[in-house]
Amino acid sequence: MQPPLHQACLPLVPLLGLWRGSGNGHYPTIDSFEYSEEIVFAHVGKPFVTYTQKTKRVSDGQPLHSEQGFLRVVDSTVMEMVIAQPTGIVETHVGSFVSNGESFIVNFDSVEVATTPSAKPVEQVSRLVRIENDELTYDLSMAAVGEKFQHHLEAKLQRVQPD
Amino acid sequence: MQPPLHQACLPLVPLLGLWRGSGNGHYPTIDSFEYSEEIVFAHVGKPFVTYTQKTKRVSDGQPLHSEQGFLRVVDSTVMEMVIAQPTGIVETHVGSFVSNGESFIVNFDSVEVATTPSAKPVEQVSRLVRIENDELTYDLSMAAVGEKFQHHLEAKLQRVQPD
Repeated sequence: MQPPLHQACLPLVPLLGLWRGSGNGHYPTIDSFEYSEEIVFAHVGKPFVTYTQKTKRVSDGQPLHSEQGFLRVVDSTVMEMVIAQPTGIVETHVGSFVSNGESFIVNFDSVEVATTPSAKPVEQVSRLVRIENDELTYDLSMAAVGEKFQHHLEAKLQRVQPD
Repeated sequence: MQPPLHQACLPLVPLLGLWRGSGNGHYPTIDSFEYSEEIVFAHVGKPFVTYTQKTKRVSDGQPLHSEQGFLRVVDSTVMEMVIAQPTGIVETHVGSFVSNGESFIVNFDSVEVATTPSAKPVEQVSRLVRIENDELTYDLSMAAVGEKFQHHLEAKLQRVQPD
């Protein structure tokens, strides 16, 4: 049974649900690529929202990337996010947000990015997420492997299931 | 359909599956507490294992803690782990391990612990995990909120479902 939403999560309501769509990525050190993506934002009745994401290669459906994280609201304009990635990367973020009924925008800038000793170095990550009319779009920029901070990923997803 | 295990994950085979059990925690700044726990280690055919954990209060089944992470093997004696927690904490770990068929032991020490601005400060975390005869036990020690590094959690879980 789904517990009632914690009131601290009210600004996060536009995120909740299952999202599916597609995106593409580019970076100076790799070939450009396309992916299909599934994102789930969910809650358990506590003052945070869970974030689960996975992407697949368009051509054969093989899993590409995945990441897991949590979001929580600090006040009426600021939220925080933490993320872990299987490539040995973790991120802490602070984001400025506007949440107004069904439309939502948050601009997360990494406070810290930590990597395990065998991981590729990542210095900075920004994640801009917009929701409007059951469509979620995001842009991810990063400074990694010695390259300057720049755009890396963009994607567009549709809400296929409410929370 | 479950893809075949990536061969890099072979040392992680003893972890795979669904585990249920209980534990208890203590720290100078809080009352001691007991919890029931569920842990899932799983894979998607890529060279990492996913870690999902949640605990509930024994008295009424209310959710207490949860965390998400990933493990990957570096060589025959070293693995790495990353973890995100909803309380605004992320951890990167390096662990020395011995994996021998069904028995397994790994001693993770945090390389970095990062916290969001509104989170309680955590400086250091160690996670010792042992598996023997389908029983998983762990001890977690940490230095947090200004206290010295010390034991915080211990738990014992049984494997209730293989991978």
